[in-house]
Order: sequence, then structure tokens, then C-alpha cells
Amino acid sequence: MGSSLKILPVIMSGGSGTRLWPLSTEARPKQFHALASDLTMIQDTALRFGADDRVDFLSPLIVCNLRHGTLVRDQLRALDVSPAAIVLEPFGRNTASVAVIAAAWAAEHAPGAIVLLLPADHVVLDGDGFRGAVGHAIAAAADHIVTFGIEPTGPETGYGYIQSGEPLYEGAFAVARFVEKPSRAVAEAYLQDGGYSWNAGIFLYRPEVFLGQARTFCPKVVDAALRALKEAAHDGPFLTLEETAFAACPSEPIDTAVMEKTDTAAVVPCSVGWADVGSWSELWRQGPLDAQENFLRGDAILLDTNSSLIWADGPIVSTIGITDLIVIATGDHVLVLPKHRAQDVKKIVDELKRRAAP
Amino acid sequence: MGSSLKILPVIMSGGSGTRLWPLSTEARPKQFHALASDLTMIQDTALRFGADDRVDFLSPLIVCNLRHGTLVRDQLRALDVSPAAIVLEPFGRNTASVAVIAAAWAAEHAPGAIVLLLPADHVVLDGDGFRGAVGHAIAAAADHIVTFGIEPTGPETGYGYIQSGEPLYEGAFAVARFVEKPSRAVAEAYLQDGGYSWNAGIFLYRPEVFLGQARTFCPKVVDAALRALKEAAHDGPFLTLEETAFAACPSEPIDTAVMEKTDTAAVVPCSVGWADVGSWSELWRQGPLDAQENFLRGDAILLDTNSSLIWADGPIVSTIGITDLIVIATGDHVLVLPKHRAQDVKKIVDELKRRAAP
Repeated sequence: MGSSLKILPVIMSGGSGTRLWPLSTEARPKQFHALASDLTMIQDTALRFGADDRVDFLSPLIVCNLRHGTLVRDQLRALDVSPAAIVLEPFGRNTASVAVIAAAWAAEHAPGAIVLLLPADHVVLDGDGFRGAVGHAIAAAADHIVTFGIEPTGPETGYGYIQSGEPLYEGAFAVARFVEKPSRAVAEAYLQDGGYSWNAGIFLYRPEVFLGQARTFCPKVVDAALRALKEAAHDGPFLTLEETAFAACPSEPIDTAVMEKTDTAAVVPCSVGWADVGSWSELWRQGPLDAQENFLRGDAILLDTNSSLIWADGPIVSTIGITDLIVIATGDHVLVLPKHRAQDVKKIVDELKRRAAP
Repeated sequence: MGSSLKILPVIMSGGSGTRLWPLSTEARPKQFHALASDLTMIQDTALRFGADDRVDFLSPLIVCNLRHGTLVRDQLRALDVSPAAIVLEPFGRNTASVAVIAAAWAAEHAPGAIVLLLPADHVVLDGDGFRGAVGHAIAAAADHIVTFGIEPTGPETGYGYIQSGEPLYEGAFAVARFVEKPSRAVAEAYLQDGGYSWNAGIFLYRPEVFLGQARTFCPKVVDAALRALKEAAHDGPFLTLEETAFAACPSEPIDTAVMEKTDTAAVVPCSVGWADVGSWSELWRQGPLDAQENFLRGDAILLDTNSSLIWADGPIVSTIGITDLIVIATGDHVLVLPKHRAQDVKKIVDELKRRAAP
């Protein structure tokens, strides 16, 4: 059944990734860096939709911030990937608006295609497994908005969880409920229970199914997003959303705007080597690690150094006698902090903004 | 008596200071950096010999490596200090040779002057107190080689100690013995005893007294050093020691070559805010420290950071949640290590040399 249907990958590249500063910056957020492989994250994401017996992928649609349009074009061109179009947002309006725009664009330019909406900045080590999961999800997508649940590898407290309900199709379940980032004890109970998966923010839906639900649960998002798309300016592969209309769009994530309200939500649990890599400590966990459990990128000399992440992007980094530390060096900035403080990197970014303010 | 005699300061600037890498390098060792004040260490040293009622200082003689001649000239010119001459060593031969060359140069070009031999890379916070100590030492220098002993401020194990013997003149004692870097327990006993001071490597002597002792205890050093000086090439302020003659000179410190053997050694204990600043942890101890006990130089953002030394020479350094750490950033290198490992910086320098070797 799957092979006759076309899938339109829509890559959301609007994130700013401040917790990966100083590598990730507003000018060049993390999806445009080679974090987990030799390719940038958006390049790895684009390459995930190669030829496959089970799924027929169209050229991807990209949605990104206005200022990153040429970065996207150049990084995909380097792989000989031609996007169907690059939608430019004058500013971010979260993911519900992107999901609406993706549905409307697909309905007009790829009639009959199913939308696969996913972030540009996630790691998926098992691309073949991921394509297989998409193939499995196609049946459920006939009348459901499908989300892919990542089978937990540990009691993570940094992700939202999805509880699977009754079976719908082979490998697909109704969503019993979405739960916010849990405490450690609750996460351990979920892991024990087995019926929970991580919310990876990856969705598969038919445009008319999604737009129908969105019109019911977030009509203002639909109205504003569709108007911004209709009045968009065209320039080669670029489609710039109309600013005034888009400014009126409520800024809401697809999860709260639609998924937690609709009764058409389905989940396809899968195990595909997924990681969010939202912070330096997550990148360290993701690995690869050397014999001393260090994550090393760039030119460095490590003596008596253990369980640390060393990122040398420019200067040579030398360390002696450190453990559990993150050391990031670019030409302009050096950042040093213990792994357990990785969430606080944003404070440095905020402080730098304060200093730069007039 | 002191005011009628001239003092020739001879500044030894041949050190390489590898433990202060990556700031201190072979191309620009620590004495040419502003470590403890806004001036470089050799500039601070040269300014120590200003006009004084008690002591009549001549323009200083500088002894440095061949490659640092123009650095010395330029850094002193910036202060309007005109050195008597700049003696260039084609390679280092330790301090006994420098002491001999200083004595011979003084005997020829500043007849009747007393030599004050001292390193370019030491901190002396109390310049007035130091000049006073020199004034006190002049009487003893009539027939002794005087060394200045620093009154200990703690049981340091990183310095050699001098035990004072019988009084010779006001404030000057015969040297009972020189002792190598002691253990902690021994250093504490010395501090308790009170008759010990740190060996700062600063000497005051009449040329004929020193040369007489050196001819007795290290005649090969005297022969080679005098020949290298006699056959030196002159070029403006520069005097380049003759290479073949100097190569034949034994490489010995003045301490073992002369001071530990002669019975003309005297010590003038003093308390002048002296510090060697031989390593990053010593620089931290030297201060100044902020309210969180951090030593900060350059542009940095410190959150929850305590008892650390942050040196930002180029990149902006940001730290979160660290304690007792040294973080040094130059444009080319970043170094991170705990303060108690400061002695191991040399291992990084050695490793870099190994890598650079063909």
C-alpha cells in the first residue's frame, strides 16, 4: 500500500539551539553545523529521504528563518539535493504554523502526497529503520495524525512522553495521552511499564486530515498561516511568507495546538538511534567516546582527562587532570563548564545579549 | 657610604618560562608579558632602579637571548629607559656565565661600580623597600658576595632556602648554608625557626670579589665567558657573545658554581613583596583576586566561578560552575587544568614539540 503513495518530507529548520552556544549562534544555529557526523545536521536530515523500496519520497520542502535561506540552499546544493522549495519565515511562529503551511503547500503542489514533518536538528542514526517506520505509519495516516514515538533507552527527564493506547494498525497505536517532561521517578515507572515512548516531534499526516483538525482546534493559526503563504513572495526556490499576516499568527507548538486536543492522534513507536542533542551534555552522551569516555572534536592534547567533551574549532585545546567537563573553543569564544551545568549555557548567551544592548 | 658608590643593575632575561605556556613561549617568554601589572615583567624590573637618595643606580645592562634583543630594546624604549648595553647570548649557559660577564663588563665600562644581578621575571611589589635593602647590602658587598633572602610568608616548598649565620653588618649575615627545595614539614620547621629566607637569585657584588671567587671555583666558566665577551660583535646597543667560545662554557647556575662553595657569601633578608610567578597557580596566589577569589585578565563572563584563574587574551572566556581551575585562552591555544596541576603545563609544551618534530 505504502509504495503507491508519495511522501513529502518537510524539514523544519527554524530552531536556534542556544544551549549549544558558542558553536550554535543566531547567525548559524546548530542544524547548520556538523555535530554528530561529518555532515551538518540539516544535510544528514535531507539525506534521510533517499531511494527506498517501501516509501516514495518527494524532494523535501524546507522551512527556515529568512536569514538562513542561502545557508540552506548552499548546504543542500553541496549534496546535490534540490529542495521542492525553501519557505522563509520573517520570524519564528513555532511549529503549529509550520505544520499548517506544510499541509497547504503539499495540497497545492503535491496533490495526494502525505506530509512527513520533522526537525532539521535531530540525530537519527538508523536511517533505514526510520524509513521503515514511515512505511509502517502510512496506513495509520489515512485517517490519523501520526507521531513517531522513540522507544526509551533510559529514564530521560528531558523529553516529553507519549503513552500508547489501543492498537490501530500493525505497529501503530492510538495515543492514550501526551505527558510533559517527567520527574526521574515517573520516567523510571514509564520505562518499567513499557507502554511509553519519547515525543520526538516528528509527524506524518494527510494535508486534509491535519487542516481539518487544525481548523477546529487552532483556527487563528490556520487563518494567519494560510494568508501568509498565499501572499508570499516568490524568488527562485525561495518563498518568503508575508510579514504582516504571519505576525498575526499565534506562536504555538503543534503539540498543544492540535495533538493534545485531537482524537485522531496515533503513535508509531520505533527505535532508530534518535537523539535531540539539545545541549553539550547530550552530545557527549550521544558519543562517540574514546577509551577515556571523552568526546573529542578538533585538535587537542588531553592528559589525565576523562568523561569530558572537548570541542576545538580553531584554537588547539589542551587539558590536564579534568573530569566531567565541557570545553568548547571557537575563534571568538571559549566556554568551560561541568556537564551537569549544560542547561545553563543559555545564561551566558543572555548575558552577552545584555552587554551588547545599547 | 652607599650614596658615593654606583650600582650597575644587570637584568638577566634569558628565562623561557614554559610553565606559563601558552602565554609564555620561546618566541616571547614570560618576562615580555604583563603578568602581574600593566607593564611587562622586564619593564617593571627596569623601572625598579629609579632615582633614590640611598642608592645611585647606573643605566641597566641587559643579558638576553639573541632572538629577544629587539623585544628588550623596544620594551625599554617604550619607558624611555636606555640600557647601558644589551648582551645577546646565542644560547643559554645558565647564570654563572652571566654573573661573570656582568662582572667583567662592569669592571671595564663602569669602574668602581657594584653589580646588582637579578632576574627580569620576578615580581617585587615594594620597589622602595627593595632599593632600601640594596642600600643596606652595600657595606657587606665590600668583601662579600651578597644574596638577598626573602623573608618567608608561608612554608613554600617551591623555593630554595638560605640559613642566616653570624651577623656581619647591620641587616647582613654570613650565609650558614643554602638548602634545596624542602619538604612541607621541613619548610614549616624553617618558618618556625625564623633564621631562614627564600633564595631569590638576586646578588650584589664587586666585580673583583666575584671574579676572584669564580676563578677559584669555576675557572672554566670564567675562561669561556670572558673570551666570548672579549670577542663579542658590537652593533649599536647590542653586544653578541662569540658563539664558539660561549659554546665551550659550562652551563651552571651561580648558586652551585660559586655561592655554595665560597666563604664570602652574605645574605640580606628583606620583605619586599617578592614572588617568582613561575606557574599559573603562583600567579593566582599572587593576585589580585576578586570577591570570589578569581584572578581575571581580559574579557570574560564568570557564573558560579570561584578560586580560579581566567586569562582571556583574544577570545571571550565564559565559565559556569567551576572551582580551582585555570583557564588560559590565546588566539591559538586554550589550556584548562586544575590549579594543583599547574606544574604539568610543561608536559603539554613537550607534547607539542614532539608533534612538531619531523
